[in-house]
Amino acid sequence: MPGPAPMKETGWAVGIMGAGQLARMLCESASAMGLHTVVLAKDAGDAAAEAAGETVIGSPSERDPLEIVATRTSVVTFDHEQVDLAVLAGLEARGVVVRPGPATLALAIDKATMRRRLASAGLPVPAFSVLRSLNGDRASSGDATIEAFADEHGWPLMLKATRGGYDGKGVWPVASIAEADRVRRQAAEHGTPLMVEEHVDITTELAVLVARRPSGEVRSWPAAETEQADGVCKEVVVPGSLDPVAARDAEEIARRVATMADVVGVLAVELFWSNGALMVNEIAARPHNSGHWTMEGAVTSQFENHLRGVLDLPLGSTERTATCIATVNVFGDDEGCDPRLRLSEALAVPGAHVHLYGKAPRPGRKLGHVTVSGTHASEVRSRGWKAARALGTPVPPTRR
Amino acid sequence: MPGPAPMKETGWAVGIMGAGQLARMLCESASAMGLHTVVLAKDAGDAAAEAAGETVIGSPSERDPLEIVATRTSVVTFDHEQVDLAVLAGLEARGVVVRPGPATLALAIDKATMRRRLASAGLPVPAFSVLRSLNGDRASSGDATIEAFADEHGWPLMLKATRGGYDGKGVWPVASIAEADRVRRQAAEHGTPLMVEEHVDITTELAVLVARRPSGEVRSWPAAETEQADGVCKEVVVPGSLDPVAARDAEEIARRVATMADVVGVLAVELFWSNGALMVNEIAARPHNSGHWTMEGAVTSQFENHLRGVLDLPLGSTERTATCIATVNVFGDDEGCDPRLRLSEALAVPGAHVHLYGKAPRPGRKLGHVTVSGTHASEVRSRGWKAARALGTPVPPTRR
Repeated sequence: MPGPAPMKETGWAVGIMGAGQLARMLCESASAMGLHTVVLAKDAGDAAAEAAGETVIGSPSERDPLEIVATRTSVVTFDHEQVDLAVLAGLEARGVVVRPGPATLALAIDKATMRRRLASAGLPVPAFSVLRSLNGDRASSGDATIEAFADEHGWPLMLKATRGGYDGKGVWPVASIAEADRVRRQAAEHGTPLMVEEHVDITTELAVLVARRPSGEVRSWPAAETEQADGVCKEVVVPGSLDPVAARDAEEIARRVATMADVVGVLAVELFWSNGALMVNEIAARPHNSGHWTMEGAVTSQFENHLRGVLDLPLGSTERTATCIATVNVFGDDEGCDPRLRLSEALAVPGAHVHLYGKAPRPGRKLGHVTVSGTHASEVRSRGWKAARALGTPVPPTRR
Repeated sequence: MPGPAPMKETGWAVGIMGAGQLARMLCESASAMGLHTVVLAKDAGDAAAEAAGETVIGSPSERDPLEIVATRTSVVTFDHEQVDLAVLAGLEARGVVVRPGPATLALAIDKATMRRRLASAGLPVPAFSVLRSLNGDRASSGDATIEAFADEHGWPLMLKATRGGYDGKGVWPVASIAEADRVRRQAAEHGTPLMVEEHVDITTELAVLVARRPSGEVRSWPAAETEQADGVCKEVVVPGSLDPVAARDAEEIARRVATMADVVGVLAVELFWSNGALMVNEIAARPHNSGHWTMEGAVTSQFENHLRGVLDLPLGSTERTATCIATVNVFGDDEGCDPRLRLSEALAVPGAHVHLYGKAPRPGRKLGHVTVSGTHASEVRSRGWKAARALGTPVPPTRR
């Protein structure tokens, strides 16, 4: 609401590129600490506009809106990775404080770069190989790299977009060279670069959130077990079923990744637990859906510690506040019903913390989440699912 | 940011009369649940403008700004008592949902009305008598009511404004009829109605927060011990030093007051514990400073349950989440330093939850609060005070 903040106030003003639910929850946390927020939104109806101090409309790949946000704030941060690194590097060169910085974002945005850096730092990752780009106009009769990779690792394999994706997808399991060729041709038509990765026999997927300050102070939250459906996270349970020693190893790996990537703010590290070993799958240099449980389940939430990190303030305790915490995501149902019309049923579930993002309902769209704490995983999960089911569908529909 | 909400959206839009820190924290809580807020602010720089979905500028005693807020929302609620009951009653008569309603507000706004209602309901209150109004132009040579009251209850006595007050004060201890006359003459000059009350030998002051739905569902949070300095709350401790049986009695009294007053949303009941007996001192039909501990110290905060109450949604659990919780208020220091410039020192205190309201710093002005949880009262209080002291002065300067 207020106009441009006077310069003296920018010391407590945070700019956020992107205005989705992550930005909305960052704004809620910033407001609690008396901070001012300026979000860059594509549209005035974006989720974060409700909670932000100011909303600037524009694209994060254009210089002008970024400049407006930068002028009104003391630090610029992000709720997504769709940013132009060259524009950000330009801002940074002119003294704008961008956190995390472009070098960290480059790692998080490009899977191939990320995998190479992690592997060269001795961190465990699935076997992978980056594929040369195909000419989309002609059918390919196979690829030497994929064939060689398959000879070593066998079928099936995973093809992954190293950046972006299309039709809402970025991962394609393939069982033969013919299937791989089909994916490669389609990817080439969309200009999507690919890498090939061994099929990992996943026992458990887990996620570790880490917060880091410019000074190097690092704190990790306890590892969470995540349940995915068709590539979308449906449930997060802390501590989950993972062996405590493996969980601690995962936290140690995540802290190493944060330091290696020079992260400032929050980093999410997604890992596989497979045949008794951990492997890093993905990273995101921002608050993450797998960390929403920290809002009620930890002394300090991922949103508050992200703000503390990017403002170079002392990080808060990441200890959990209950024996067991479960977060269940809420997706739009087939009827497109607004979950706010169903709050009554969800809030009747004891201890259900309902978060809705104020987004227009669409089938399969992530509209909110529910967090429940307690002493027994099965009981906590049961309450979480009950409330999430009341609001929409807790499992996203299979993508078509 | 968005313009007027279309009618279909008002089902999840809440109007708030007043835009101070209570409204700001209501907006933060509303945003978390996906609700839209419209606040009525005196000024675009008011505390809640940062966190509100929309800000309407105007006075709550004028009909027009109230109408605008009412049109855009499905329920109208309050962060203060400076409202025109006749205007609200007019809105209500035309179908606007006002919660709490004018009848409840009338009780909370006028101490004399409140005391009479509580006394006639058999609830314990200090002995009191409402004084006839004085003509401010002439010196009075004493008042039969005060003299008779003093004969029965002895000196000193308390004179209290039944509504409003002046020079930032509403309570005046007096030790003689001469002192009482001086206060009465000044009060008459300000048009402030008075009542006289026995001096209560206070062992402990406590506060109980209660949430209530239109259906009658009532939930009370555990009683808190409050420490006052010069009429201003400086610290809130849960469970505090009060005998657990007395604390439960206080909670029972507070629930009875809520039902008697037909409260919808949150009610704060402040009580005295004196010579082994409880007495109701004040009530406020809104979230209250004595309930800020619920944000981190209870399963459901007073702000969330106020919203649930006024929207007629199921109330959340009011159980505390730690053995002991302390909240210390932060007041502006003599230099007028902004506490946001001192966040680093405060956030270095382990487990300190810092809330700042984004208000312009002035000596003695309430600018924020700090909440800390743990297992031992002395340790928890010590951390709370350390963080509050880092931000400003945790004890308000004596009023001059």
